[in-house]
This record gives sequence, structure tokens and C-alpha cells, in this order.
Amino acid sequence: MTTTSFGKKPLTGIVPPMVTPLNSIDSLDIEGTEKLVEHILSAPVSGLFILGTTGEFSSISYKLRHELIEKVCKQVNGRVPVLVGITDTSIIESVNLANKAADCGADAVVSAPPFYYAAAQPELIEYYHNLAPRLPLPLYLYNMPVHTKVMIDPNTVKKISEVKNVIGLKDSSANAVYLNLVRHAMKDVEGFEIFVGPEEMTAEMVMMGANGGVNGGANMFPQLYVDMFNAAVNRDIEKLKPIQEKILEISATIYTVGRYGSSYLKGVKTVLNLMGICNDFIADPFHRFRKEERDIIRKNLLSLGIEGLVE
Amino acid sequence: MTTTSFGKKPLTGIVPPMVTPLNSIDSLDIEGTEKLVEHILSAPVSGLFILGTTGEFSSISYKLRHELIEKVCKQVNGRVPVLVGITDTSIIESVNLANKAADCGADAVVSAPPFYYAAAQPELIEYYHNLAPRLPLPLYLYNMPVHTKVMIDPNTVKKISEVKNVIGLKDSSANAVYLNLVRHAMKDVEGFEIFVGPEEMTAEMVMMGANGGVNGGANMFPQLYVDMFNAAVNRDIEKLKPIQEKILEISATIYTVGRYGSSYLKGVKTVLNLMGICNDFIADPFHRFRKEERDIIRKNLLSLGIEGLVE
Amino acid sequence: MTTTSFGKKPLTGIVPPMVTPLNSIDSLDIEGTEKLVEHILSAPVSGLFILGTTGEFSSISYKLRHELIEKVCKQVNGRVPVLVGITDTSIIESVNLANKAADCGADAVVSAPPFYYAAAQPELIEYYHNLAPRLPLPLYLYNMPVHTKVMIDPNTVKKISEVKNVIGLKDSSANAVYLNLVRHAMKDVEGFEIFVGPEEMTAEMVMMGANGGVNGGANMFPQLYVDMFNAAVNRDIEKLKPIQEKILEISATIYTVGRYGSSYLKGVKTVLNLMGICNDFIADPFHRFRKEERDIIRKNLLSLGIEGLVE
Amino acid sequence: MTTTSFGKKPLTGIVPPMVTPLNSIDSLDIEGTEKLVEHILSAPVSGLFILGTTGEFSSISYKLRHELIEKVCKQVNGRVPVLVGITDTSIIESVNLANKAADCGADAVVSAPPFYYAAAQPELIEYYHNLAPRLPLPLYLYNMPVHTKVMIDPNTVKKISEVKNVIGLKDSSANAVYLNLVRHAMKDVEGFEIFVGPEEMTAEMVMMGANGGVNGGANMFPQLYVDMFNAAVNRDIEKLKPIQEKILEISATIYTVGRYGSSYLKGVKTVLNLMGICNDFIADPFHRFRKEERDIIRKNLLSLGIEGLVE
Repeated sequence: MTTTSFGKKPLTGIVPPMVTPLNSIDSLDIEGTEKLVEHILSAPVSGLFILGTTGEFSSISYKLRHELIEKVCKQVNGRVPVLVGITDTSIIESVNLANKAADCGADAVVSAPPFYYAAAQPELIEYYHNLAPRLPLPLYLYNMPVHTKVMIDPNTVKKISEVKNVIGLKDSSANAVYLNLVRHAMKDVEGFEIFVGPEEMTAEMVMMGANGGVNGGANMFPQLYVDMFNAAVNRDIEKLKPIQEKILEISATIYTVGRYGSSYLKGVKTVLNLMGICNDFIADPFHRFRKEERDIIRKNLLSLGIEGLVE
Repeated sequence: MTTTSFGKKPLTGIVPPMVTPLNSIDSLDIEGTEKLVEHILSAPVSGLFILGTTGEFSSISYKLRHELIEKVCKQVNGRVPVLVGITDTSIIESVNLANKAADCGADAVVSAPPFYYAAAQPELIEYYHNLAPRLPLPLYLYNMPVHTKVMIDPNTVKKISEVKNVIGLKDSSANAVYLNLVRHAMKDVEGFEIFVGPEEMTAEMVMMGANGGVNGGANMFPQLYVDMFNAAVNRDIEKLKPIQEKILEISATIYTVGRYGSSYLKGVKTVLNLMGICNDFIADPFHRFRKEERDIIRKNLLSLGIEGLVE
Repeated sequence: MTTTSFGKKPLTGIVPPMVTPLNSIDSLDIEGTEKLVEHILSAPVSGLFILGTTGEFSSISYKLRHELIEKVCKQVNGRVPVLVGITDTSIIESVNLANKAADCGADAVVSAPPFYYAAAQPELIEYYHNLAPRLPLPLYLYNMPVHTKVMIDPNTVKKISEVKNVIGLKDSSANAVYLNLVRHAMKDVEGFEIFVGPEEMTAEMVMMGANGGVNGGANMFPQLYVDMFNAAVNRDIEKLKPIQEKILEISATIYTVGRYGSSYLKGVKTVLNLMGICNDFIADPFHRFRKEERDIIRKNLLSLGIEGLVE
Repeated sequence: MTTTSFGKKPLTGIVPPMVTPLNSIDSLDIEGTEKLVEHILSAPVSGLFILGTTGEFSSISYKLRHELIEKVCKQVNGRVPVLVGITDTSIIESVNLANKAADCGADAVVSAPPFYYAAAQPELIEYYHNLAPRLPLPLYLYNMPVHTKVMIDPNTVKKISEVKNVIGLKDSSANAVYLNLVRHAMKDVEGFEIFVGPEEMTAEMVMMGANGGVNGGANMFPQLYVDMFNAAVNRDIEKLKPIQEKILEISATIYTVGRYGSSYLKGVKTVLNLMGICNDFIADPFHRFRKEERDIIRKNLLSLGIEGLVE
């Protein structure tokens, strides 16, 4: 059981989507995981989200997912709410993961649409109407069209929100028109929480009323993103500007090294490894950066003013 | 020759992308065009953009495009800068349109990538390096991936901006990550202007530093969008909020009637017709709303507090 | 242990991708499964493929997948080779499924690329180089771009085929240029088997050299597809023509009822139910046809000359 | 006026989609055009299609399109039917091009859907119902979804075929399921002609009943594609096989040099230049291959047994 006030009032702030430190394809980097959790919690983040896209949920075995839920919940120990990704193509496996999360004391679960078949909007509505009531924890929807091949339309979000247990949406579409229209559609739904995935656009969305950010960069530099959130929520644009520029510089120089769609994940894991926090092993179908890209990342980190990197 | 200060200082504010009033497939609604120009200019907009996507540039004949350029430039008569869309699959036809625009006293031209073949990023760079020097007017890039099948990447924008004549970018991708990364990439390029297409996301982008909005809704309610811009540029979020909600309500209730991608255009033309401003004829491959959708639009306009509609 | 000659000579012919009869979201329709297997094997099909896309592999729990592998392998009992889908986003879960398949006496496994993240071509090569050697059974690649967001390029197929254990490709892209180029790229690789998913194009591909079809329609009418294969492999186009027309009529009238991408699956399960073979329950995110669509299917079946339907 | 029997009986065979030889962005390579027409007509092709995708119709000015129509019609002088591409985003410009084609004695026109906005199926039906009656020549539909962002669905083809003047379809989707379903939908429409764009799949489609191929490779090696058609139409698969392998080898080694989508066009123009037939200039947004790729093409041509290449 956690000691947070989760569920009593809306969650706001930065909820880092934690990477999953791995030693090999089916083995957690236990020490790295512990160091990473503490590194992230050293800043006043508002929660911790495990087994999301950044957490390579889909690439690791269910055994490892269970192990990670256990370890992280135990280690966090109620200091912040723990959100657990249960996205799956099988509704039964999603429920299984949610049960595990509840057993371990997690606070909420997060579910993107099933991602093998692409469901139509009425099918999405029915899907979440079937899923949510079976869950022992509150549910955040997760809009992630690049991977799921479907947007959860604003009106669909509205209809799904009528189901018990559905408390918010994390959007990773990068589509600001969509996000504003969701906010508009949900404006009369008391307490519905909206979190923004991409850190490059979180600040302005928070200014416009979003609850916070689920920003991958907060694995590396949690305080920076908390600072961004605080400036944004206080609408202090002068204070925000240099923070925002740094966040954009991180995006431009760390997330786009290498040629494939996996550059973001590889970049974050390389930085965490260079910072001495955890292993940079990445599960199939991706792989850690080789020396060439690693050296570029190191150089770019130095340009960003990050020091004390390991070999 | 216009009497605006265009080109001397960066353009900021709302630059409505004017619809093209038509009486039939190859005939301008001359009276409607005059009324529409005056309706838009009745608010302190910062410019007028003709022959964009909202202006159905691609659906009407070149004869009609020339006629529209002539009439609008003459009627605006230097009151605001006129921007002319020259997007074309043929570089020669783009130059022809730009020459016509210059002859008629327009102030700048706007060009999206050629849209039959999808060009790769190096090909885009070369394309604009070939196009821009042939143009008699300053050029805005136009990022419109839904229609052109290609994003103009931030680094590509940077490289194209090195060409003489390229002064800014209009982005209609709705992708706020992209737009922030473009802004970041261009931060050291003095005076490079960034305009936002989708009105649902213009306010926050202006707060973050964008120059203004090219918002289709300003055809109908130009003052509303100017008010939005002013609140945003002054970072007056309390003042902005009700304006923004109204803009989102317009989007949610006027642009999504009907089942196809053309709903936005049909919605705007229907409203202009209901307001007694111009014909709602739409060129192939689209068609005006029928009575059923028209009645929904009328009802939604009344809910928005718009009165004095015609039959 | 099967008594087939699988692996000794290339497989050819029709290998129906079996639907998974379900009584509810986590319960097999045992009786229906038995009847369906016998219905399919009543024709001289060349194998049985379970847990493919048509088999809703991704929608059902791992417990159910294991149960289905057990039951089907036991019931088939070596009469034809059994191929088991092991497509998964986690390489470890794919290996687990393959081990189960081997334990139950299956003959081969089938794997599409991981489908949450979209891998690049070099990542696909590395993926299958990691996967195949861990498998206890021969592996068919499975090209299914609509669901996996990536094509396995002809040159990628070639490079993957160098790995031990990789014996063929099932292609469901519907892209005949691709399939011909794969065949061309693999022409010097002795014994590499190419199977075609879409039944509408299997005949001509078999004439051009493909090994056979993995045709969903063979759940309903296995003899028809075997007849098609035989006519095609004998290049007897006169005999083929009326068969092919019937196959196209099935596609046009059974697979496109209803408005969503799931029409094909719903159509096949409805027909099997109307034929008295098995339950038409479909796992989330899809759902069985309602009465309206069911009545259309019934009517279309009658037009196809199918009689003896149940209520 | 041509002396062909066009329109009296269905067209069958190979109708090469001619590239447009250019000396610069707005100047035809007149001598190259003449040589290319004669080179193509040296084989018993069944027609000549100008201003298609391979002909860079969208990249060249209308002035050049008119000039090309004039020159080619005059030079062909009724030896084979001339088909002219009139695809345009503006219905008026399509009609203008068709009128020019009729004036010059062309035999038919070819039109893909408007390609800036993507039309929905009912909009496509209405579009062609508006277009076809305005045309002075018979019309072939042109399905080209990669460029137009829309498939002309089989049922849409059926409904459009009811319009006077619509006599056939050229399909370049590469989707054999689609093509078979179109053939099936149109089976009762007497004389409706179906042509296949991609040469890699033309043979089997002709065996299944398609009228012929509009194959880009026939610019280079017209006799080879005529041989392919003849073997296919005679269902002589033994004769067809080595021809088909050569066609696939051309595709694999000539059309995929270079990294972008434009490789096919660049490959064909490079070969024509190496064969001494015409200039390899390509209009924006593409550009001719540089020496590196040119040398690869040369080497691959030699491997194909093509000799007598120029520098």
C-alpha cells in the first residue's frame, strides 16, 4: 500500500517514463534500476511511470515485467505514485499485468490501444468499456498513434471517460490540435487528467491547462523537467525560456543520432550509461549504440555542459 | 507597389488564408470576393494569404488563379501585405505564378513542396535552392505533410533558409514537437518568421515565440483570431482562455460536420454563405454541403452566439 | 512426434490459417475447434497454420495459445504438418511459444517482425539472426506490413535466409511486385518456400512459382482452395477460371460486410458459425457481427450456393 | 486523325509510358524525343502513353506538355494509338489538356484522381462523373495510390465505368488483391480494359485476364516487354520464365540504385542516356544520377548483357 494521496486530487507535474535497465535480453540490471530510481527521485518528480514505450514494455518478457513492477514498487515505497503500463494486444494479459501492479502497491495503470490490429473508434470505445471495469486500479488512456496505428479521437476519449476507473489520458501524438481538442472535449469532466508525452511541447500545453509531462528526458535530468513544469504552471515565460531551449537542445542533439526510429531510446540509454547510472543494453529489435554514435552523444553532452561522464 | 513596410521588419499577427469564393468551377464569385476581403480587413489582421490550401489553389484553373491575384491585390491596395500561394508540382508554373503576383503588387509568395512525387530531404533542399532565386518576391516555405507527403525537416528548413529570398515558414503539420524544433534550429537566424496554420494551437505557439497564425477561421471571425493573437503575444492567459475556448468550439462544431477530410473547407464556406458574404460553391473534387449538413452548421453557429444568418 | 515428411522436401499446397474458435474472451470453444480441424482436414490440405493473424494470436492470452497448440497438435496427430505462429514483440515470448510448439509436436513456426516499434531493415536482419538460432523448429518469415508497419525487403529476406532454421516466407502484403522480387532474390536459394496469404492472388503466384497459399477462406471451403492450387500448379487456366471467380466472389461478398478493417475476420467466423462448425465469438478489440451483418452474410452465402445453414 | 482502330476493339498488349526527354527544366530534348519514339515503336507495341508518372507530367510546365503532345502525335502519325495523361488537381486544366490531345489526334486520355486533397470514394465517383463528359476522348482511370493518397475502390471503378467515355483502368498500385477484385467487379462490363503498371507483375495479370502492361521498362527494351506479353497471353509459361527473370533482374538492378523513391525514374533515364537515345535530365524535384550511380547502372547493364553503351 502506498502512502501517496493518489486519486484524492489530480496528479500534476513530471512523471518520468522510466527506461528499463537491462543486462541482457531477459535479465534486469538490478543495480542500475536501483540507481536510476534514486536518480529520478532525487528531483521532486510527481510520479514514476514504468513499462511505457520508453520502458521497452513490449520487448521484454512478462517475467521481467513482473520482476520490474515488484522491484520498483518496493523501492519507491510510496514516495511517489507508481504508474504501470499494461498496454497489450490481449485484454487478458493487460488485466494480468494490472493485477500484478495492484498486488505490488502501484497506484495506477496506463493502457494504449491494442496494437496489432488497428481498431476503429467504436471498437476502441467498446475495448475500454471491457477493460476498465476489470482493473483493480485507476486507468490512464495512452494515445500513441505512431505505434498503435490509431488515434483515440477526442469524442472517443469523452465516451471512454464515462467508464468507472478511467481518470486521464497520456498523449504522445505530438499533435497539438488533437491535444487542445481533447482538452476542450473534456473540459466539463471534473478531474480528468491530461499528460503530455513529448517534452518538446510539454511547457506550452501545461500553460494551456495540461496536468504535466511524461517526459523521457527526465530519466537523465529530472530536475530540468521539474523546473520546466514549474515555470510553465506559473506561466513564468522568462524563466521558462532558457529551460525550454536546453530541453530542445537535448532533443536536437541526443535523440536524433543514428538513422532509425529508435534513436531516441538509444540516446537516452547511452546517456544514462555515460552518467554511470545503468547498462545501455536494449532489447530486440533494437540494439545499443556502437562506439561511433556513443562518441557523438558524449561530445554533445559536453556541449550541453554535462560533465563527469564515464568511459 | 504596396505601401506596407513588408520586408523591413518581421511580419507578426494573423494572416488569414482566404477562401476563394466561386460561382462555378471556373468562375469567381466577384461580389463575394470583394465582400470577403472587406469582411476580413474589417479587423486589424496583419496580411492576407490567397491561393493556399484553404483557398483551393490546386482545384482551380490558372486563369482563375491569375484573376484572383489581380482582383485581391487591387482591392487590398496596400492596406496589408498580400501573400500568394505558388505551390505547384512544376517549378516553372510556380515561377509563373510568382511573376504574376509581383506584377500585381503582392508582397510575398508561399510554397509547399511539390506534391505529386514525394521528395527526399536532400531533394527538398535542392528544390528550394532552384526555386527561390528565380522568384521576384520573398518566399515563405509551407510545411503541409498531409497533402505533400513529406515534412520539411528542421535541418532542411535551416539549410533552405540560407538561400536568398527565403524569409519564413508556415507550418500546418499540427506537430508541436516539429514546430518547436524548427524554432530551435532557426533561433540564430535573424528575422526568420514562423507562422502557424492550425488555429487550435496558434496561441501557445505565439507565446513560445512564433510570429503569428494563418488561421482559416479568420475568414469568418477575423477579430476573434486577432484577439487571440494579442492575448497570446501579451502572454495574458486569463484573457486568452475564453477566446481559446471559443476557437476550439468553432473547430469542434464547424470543422467536423460530414464524414470526409474536406469537412473543414466545407464548414468555412457554409458559414460564410450563411453570413451572407459569399457563395459556398466548392471546386472538384469536393462539393458544398447539402441541406442536412448546412442545417447542422446553422444550429452550431447559433449555439456559438452567431446571429443574423441568411437562409 | 509427427509422421509427416516435413523438412525433407519443400511444402507445397494450401495451408489454411485456422481461426481460433472461442466461447468467450479467455475460453476456447473446444468442440468447435475439433469440428473445425476435421472440417479443414476433410480436404487434402498440405498443413495447418494456427495462431496467425486469422487465428487472433495477438488477442488471446498466452494460456489460451498454449492450450490451442496442445489441442490442435494432438488432434491433427501428424496427418499434416502443423505450423504455429510465434509472432511477438518480445523475442523471449516468441521462443517460449516455439518451445511449446516443439513440445507438442508441431512442425514449424512462423514469425512476423515485432510490431510495436517498427524496426529498420538492418534491425530486422539482426532480429531474425537472434531469434532463429534459439528456435527448436524451422522458421517461416511472415511479411505482414499492414499490422507490423514494416516490409521485409527482398534483400533483407535474402540475408535472413542465411540463418540456420529459416526455410521460407509467408507474404501477406498483397504486393505482387514485392512478391515477385522476393522470388527473384531467392531464386538461387535451394528449397526456400514462398507462401501467399491473400487468396485473391494465390493462383497466379503459384503459377509463377510460389509454393502455395495460406488462405483464410480455406477455413470455410478447404476443397475449393485446394482445387484452386491444383489448377494453378498444373497451369490449367481454363479449369482455374471458375474456381478463381468463386474465390473472388467470396472475397467481395463475405469479407467486406461491415465498415471496419476487421470485416474479413468477422465474415469468416460468421460463416463458420452459420455452417454449424464453431462459435463466432471474436476477442477484443473486435466483436462478432450483429444480426444485421449476419443476415447479409447469410444471404450472400446463399447466392454463392452454400446451403444447409443454421440459424 | 489517327488511322488506328482504337475504340473499335479493346486495346491489348504493351503500351509504354514514355519518359519525357528534357534538355533543361523547361526545354524538351527534341532529338532525343524523336529517337525515343522510334526506339519504342521499333517493337510491336500496342500504343504509346505520354505524360504519365514516368513522363514527369507533374514536373514540367503546361507549355512543355502541349509541345510534347504535338510532337509525339505528329511523329507517331497513327502508327499506334497515343494515350495522353491529363491528371491534374484542377478539372479545368485536365479538360484543357484533353482538348489539346484531341486537337493533335491523340486517341485517349488517362486521369488519376486529383492529388493534393485526397478525395473520399463518393467524391471520386462525382469527380469522374463531372470530368468524363467534358472530355473529347475516351478516358482511362489511373489508380496510383502512392502519389494520389487514395485507391479507386473496385466498387468505385464500377460506378465510374457507368459514365460515358470511361473505357478502362490503368492500375499502378502493385496490389494484386485489388487488381483481381477490380477485374471481378468489372467482369460483366463488356470491353472494360485493365492495364497493369508495374512490369514485375504484368505477366501473371495478363494470364488472369488483364489487357496488357504500361511498363516503364519498355522505354529501354520494348521488344522484351512485348515478348513477355505474348508469352503471357498465350499462357506459355516455359517461354515466359526466362523473360520474366530478365524483367525482374532489370527491376532489381536498375530501379533501386540510389536511396530515394525517385530511383526508378533516374534509372530509366540513365539507361536511355547510356544507350545514346536521349538526355538524362530530370525535372525538379528530382535530378539525374551522378557519376557514382551512373557507373553502377552501366555495370548492371553489362551484367544484363546490354552492350554498345556510350560514355
